[in-house]
Amino acid sequence: MNRKLRELAEWVNGKVVGDGEINISGVAAIDEAKEGEITFIANPKYLPKLDQTCASAVIVSHEVSQREKPLLCVDNPYLAFAKILTLFSQNPYQSRGIDPHSWISSTATLGEELTIYPFVYIGDRCSIGDRVTLYPGVHVGEGSSIGEESILYPNVSIYPGTIIGRRVILHSGVVVGSDGFGYVKEGKRNVKIPQVGGVEIEDDVEIGANTTIDRATLGKTIIRKGVKIDNLVQVAHNVIIGEDSIIVAQVGISGSTKIGSNVTLAGQVGVVGHIEIGDNVMVGAQSGVAHDLEANQGYVGSPALPHREFLRAITVFPKLPEMRKTLLEIERRFKKIEEALSSKGKEK
Amino acid sequence: MNRKLRELAEWVNGKVVGDGEINISGVAAIDEAKEGEITFIANPKYLPKLDQTCASAVIVSHEVSQREKPLLCVDNPYLAFAKILTLFSQNPYQSRGIDPHSWISSTATLGEELTIYPFVYIGDRCSIGDRVTLYPGVHVGEGSSIGEESILYPNVSIYPGTIIGRRVILHSGVVVGSDGFGYVKEGKRNVKIPQVGGVEIEDDVEIGANTTIDRATLGKTIIRKGVKIDNLVQVAHNVIIGEDSIIVAQVGISGSTKIGSNVTLAGQVGVVGHIEIGDNVMVGAQSGVAHDLEANQGYVGSPALPHREFLRAITVFPKLPEMRKTLLEIERRFKKIEEALSSKGKEK
Amino acid sequence: MNRKLRELAEWVNGKVVGDGEINISGVAAIDEAKEGEITFIANPKYLPKLDQTCASAVIVSHEVSQREKPLLCVDNPYLAFAKILTLFSQNPYQSRGIDPHSWISSTATLGEELTIYPFVYIGDRCSIGDRVTLYPGVHVGEGSSIGEESILYPNVSIYPGTIIGRRVILHSGVVVGSDGFGYVKEGKRNVKIPQVGGVEIEDDVEIGANTTIDRATLGKTIIRKGVKIDNLVQVAHNVIIGEDSIIVAQVGISGSTKIGSNVTLAGQVGVVGHIEIGDNVMVGAQSGVAHDLEANQGYVGSPALPHREFLRAITVFPKLPEMRKTLLEIERRFKKIEEALSSKGKEK
Repeated sequence: MNRKLRELAEWVNGKVVGDGEINISGVAAIDEAKEGEITFIANPKYLPKLDQTCASAVIVSHEVSQREKPLLCVDNPYLAFAKILTLFSQNPYQSRGIDPHSWISSTATLGEELTIYPFVYIGDRCSIGDRVTLYPGVHVGEGSSIGEESILYPNVSIYPGTIIGRRVILHSGVVVGSDGFGYVKEGKRNVKIPQVGGVEIEDDVEIGANTTIDRATLGKTIIRKGVKIDNLVQVAHNVIIGEDSIIVAQVGISGSTKIGSNVTLAGQVGVVGHIEIGDNVMVGAQSGVAHDLEANQGYVGSPALPHREFLRAITVFPKLPEMRKTLLEIERRFKKIEEALSSKGKEK
Repeated sequence: MNRKLRELAEWVNGKVVGDGEINISGVAAIDEAKEGEITFIANPKYLPKLDQTCASAVIVSHEVSQREKPLLCVDNPYLAFAKILTLFSQNPYQSRGIDPHSWISSTATLGEELTIYPFVYIGDRCSIGDRVTLYPGVHVGEGSSIGEESILYPNVSIYPGTIIGRRVILHSGVVVGSDGFGYVKEGKRNVKIPQVGGVEIEDDVEIGANTTIDRATLGKTIIRKGVKIDNLVQVAHNVIIGEDSIIVAQVGISGSTKIGSNVTLAGQVGVVGHIEIGDNVMVGAQSGVAHDLEANQGYVGSPALPHREFLRAITVFPKLPEMRKTLLEIERRFKKIEEALSSKGKEK
Repeated sequence: MNRKLRELAEWVNGKVVGDGEINISGVAAIDEAKEGEITFIANPKYLPKLDQTCASAVIVSHEVSQREKPLLCVDNPYLAFAKILTLFSQNPYQSRGIDPHSWISSTATLGEELTIYPFVYIGDRCSIGDRVTLYPGVHVGEGSSIGEESILYPNVSIYPGTIIGRRVILHSGVVVGSDGFGYVKEGKRNVKIPQVGGVEIEDDVEIGANTTIDRATLGKTIIRKGVKIDNLVQVAHNVIIGEDSIIVAQVGISGSTKIGSNVTLAGQVGVVGHIEIGDNVMVGAQSGVAHDLEANQGYVGSPALPHREFLRAITVFPKLPEMRKTLLEIERRFKKIEEALSSKGKEK
């Protein structure tokens, strides 16, 4: 597929500086782009590469001044890159039908134009929407529903009664609806609390490989529209994650916690149970969140502090040995002076 | 199913305050309960909700005084809730038989009343106890045994020679018996140490989704009776976890470490190898344990400190910048005084 | 299988002290070894056990002086143990052929002497090398290639276009080639950046259970020769891990980061994206790496500091409350002295 540069500019609402009639055949990273391809610079520190790349055109921000090479100037080069890459990489959906080596309950309701691979299991009373793709080893437990155009990659396990929206992408090894971790001690013995709630995943959610989403004890665990979850994340029972939030790899969210919308939890963050994190909060990597967090703020550290407060404190941390030394020395010298003054006092 | 309130009281050894003859049809959370349902209050901070809930009865502790609504008073409301929820949610086991789309070795020994789903693999010389349920995609490696009434959810992988007790629950994606992570450097090359030991999981253990339990190098990795492990936990080779211990999500336990009985490791804790953690220890979330821990204590932090000691120190952490400023200022003013005193000395 | 002690000595280039003609039937840990078996002592602290073990011979370092029991003296007892255990535990490969309950595309290229279990899926245009073993539930996406003698354990998922080298071992639940976690905000909405790159895993790599390796956005995620990765590790898009590096359980490596060769990342380490870690670096458990790390050094802490610097600072951490108390007291007493001196000054 070829596109003229000016066509790409229209696609992303940008402006061509230079020859808009050149043909673009694909997208590549700046160091690897070949003639005929377009690349991008989102971070100004890579601007010196602009004159070295073999790409035939470069997506840049409006600030970049004219060069020999044709430029595609936009408000957000990274967003324009994403859209142009989508244009070049996206193939129209083609149904492969239902493989006879799958196992589908006779009571399941199946949509049109499905792609069901071998070794897929669909339980009783499930509902599978149009153009859904289920890869080998996918398990859909009884009474679950999967919305149109969702894709479940190999070896995804969906427990019974799970509701999955439209255009949801679940990567390999994702588990949705496993029992929440709920026990109560009777003496030393752990008595299991039945986990009879469910999970609902709304439209346009994407969940990374081997992430686990537990079912609620009672009620529902809910992942709201547009949420993106990375690999190996743990979402406990009764958690609610608000719209468009971003949960990076290996985050753990404990039971009944409510995450606002448009929140970012960076990698390996841990969040305790039964708290609320406000909208638009950003939590730095490896932080530990033990209390409610106010909306529209950044936090970091374990336990988490407001971003700036943490940075100021952690900068002092390596100076602790020196501080302690100074302190002990001052204390010693200080006693001397006190003694000197007090003996002087007595002298009088 | 309906039960009279007084029947529930007998079931949990509690006392009815109010009308014990009312019919209860189910259990629900306090905000969602409808007429006919019972709910519970385990935490006194939710007591104000007692008069607002639509539930027909409420499980409370003995301290709660009489209300308009019928109460079920017990020693431990959360435990009573768990037991009543079990009563309402538990269905008697029904065998579904052995699906012909499974693959079972002719040398395997099979119990009675099994439920073997399609796409299950059972290797040579395995032994499967009565009323075991194996969901689709479960792999049982050769020579493994699974005790009565155990449930292996979809896509669980059991490596050869694994011993699994009775009433064990393994959630989707659990891996038991993978090779321990053992190498020894020969120059820069990593030489693999064969992992020829096994894994034993005792009765009444439950293991969460995508958790991994490695086989021993020599000897056995052992998970003792009644242990409950959450999702995405890593248990390395030759680890032993004592009875009734609770291991929360994303904990990692390194090789050959011994965890006592009734221990709690909170979420994302890391434990180094070759150490011992005593009975009844509680380790706080995200802690890093690098040394033996004495029994019956709480620890937290990375590296872990006794609970109180950590709390006192971490409280000071945000004050470090201010402390450093004070210290530098005192040092400066202190030098002045010393100079003043010393020049006075000289004056004399 | 029996071997004479002097034969084992030749195998590991060691020296027998005592009777080299005794027969050895196997290898066991020092506490569990029985007559006829050989054991090892790699750590001098276990030397007192040398005279108690029932083993018939013991692998030790050259420094250990003669004992009643035959000794096998070597430069590196742990390495010799690994090699002798390999000798005793390794069975010659035997092909089991291709099970008819697998699903293999007619356009796949298959090597000789394969072992393909039931419920394996091999997509279009895949290439499977000689003597490869694919366990049940393995998915090999279209256009992927797997080199000779590699082993993919149950329920491994390989996305399309993945290149896997020779003698690679992927444990159960490993996911290779899932989409990298790449989005760009358009307002609050997360626009997906297509992940059209691939993954290449070179020869002799071993990857632990439920570890996830994402495909590159553009270009390739690369795991170099001899790298060993433990369980539940996250490797993001476009990461490169250098030869012979060791990545311990639950580590997370963010996008586009380059790890040098012979690096060790201990358990639960987190590494941010777009940085470089030099060759031979060691990073301690639970560390957080936010900047480039220089080669040949040890680092620890979150944020990571040079090993010694961190140890010195963290030792002071529990003393913070006492330091603060001292500081406040000195400040108070100091003011008094200043006042005293100043009033004296005025007196004059």
